[in-house]
Amino acid sequence: MPQNPDAFTRLINALKILPNVGPKSAQRMAYQLLQHSRSGAQELAEALQHALKQVHHCTRCNTFCEGGLCDICADQNRDPRRLMIVHMPADVSGMEAANCHDGLYFVLMGQVNPAQGMDLSHIALDKLVERLQNSEVEEIIIATNFTAEGDATAYVLSELFKNLPYKVSRLARGIPLGGELEYVDAGTLAQAVYERKMLKE
Amino acid sequence: MPQNPDAFTRLINALKILPNVGPKSAQRMAYQLLQHSRSGAQELAEALQHALKQVHHCTRCNTFCEGGLCDICADQNRDPRRLMIVHMPADVSGMEAANCHDGLYFVLMGQVNPAQGMDLSHIALDKLVERLQNSEVEEIIIATNFTAEGDATAYVLSELFKNLPYKVSRLARGIPLGGELEYVDAGTLAQAVYERKMLKE
Repeated sequence: MPQNPDAFTRLINALKILPNVGPKSAQRMAYQLLQHSRSGAQELAEALQHALKQVHHCTRCNTFCEGGLCDICADQNRDPRRLMIVHMPADVSGMEAANCHDGLYFVLMGQVNPAQGMDLSHIALDKLVERLQNSEVEEIIIATNFTAEGDATAYVLSELFKNLPYKVSRLARGIPLGGELEYVDAGTLAQAVYERKMLKE
Repeated sequence: MPQNPDAFTRLINALKILPNVGPKSAQRMAYQLLQHSRSGAQELAEALQHALKQVHHCTRCNTFCEGGLCDICADQNRDPRRLMIVHMPADVSGMEAANCHDGLYFVLMGQVNPAQGMDLSHIALDKLVERLQNSEVEEIIIATNFTAEGDATAYVLSELFKNLPYKVSRLARGIPLGGELEYVDAGTLAQAVYERKMLKE
């Protein structure tokens, strides 16, 4: 593409670092930013610099925060006996929006990839072990994804807790709320049958 | 989402300026950048700043470039008699990749939106008129999209050229290369019949 000037090409290449952004999307984004959102582009550049400097990990739950402790870990009203383990900060947001967990979180900041040799360096296992030492945690809820990576991560965690004195659970699998059987995929259907809930024995 | 620190939330909001990026994607991008691609995030911030400072419009064809003239306009081997009018720089790249046009381009840097009152301020009409004055252009190829916006833009352009001494054409509509009729949408099929090419009269 010889008609692209260097600064424009550089921006396109830099945008390709974003997840799910290929060459076509990057080109469209660069055009949009420079032609229609120059102030937005300026703000994005500054927000990136600011975040790179300011955002660290919560010393307790490992999520992103600016101070030492995140808001949830600092909240005295949360139940310290229940710890939910998630993949990334967005999962914490989702759970908080669902308003279904009043305990604390631990954010792994990664997943185990079974296709790449179950490398454990992608998840913050050491920090998790440290977090559990001398803690009040009684129950651990594994809230990883129901994907190959999430399942592998859940397996690693369940092995880790095998001989430790915690109640350990994982999120339920089944038909989503509002789900019509006609449109549910076969794997989910099968899982919903295997893990059917007994109403009367 | 109280657990998100300010710098992280600011980055998420800044990312939402990107086309087709909603709150969920922005959150995932921010996580990806800070957790897994800090050097990429740094490069993106710098590339944005650099592009905002360096990238201007080609004085001749209006595409993005760093100097006064873009590479294509500066190329003496292009045929100055044929001018192709496109929506944005990515369309120039696409045409160049298809290697089907040896003339010059004019980039409108926008489209007319018929749903918003056919506002002509989004397209560089003044620059186009200026470009055509005292030029060698003989034929104009309108290469806008086949969408409501692209059709409206093509209409505006064809009205503009109505009484001017140029040959004016628009890209052909029809079945795409390799297209199987079974999978082609009804509108395209109908258009392909209306604009069928006579092989023998």
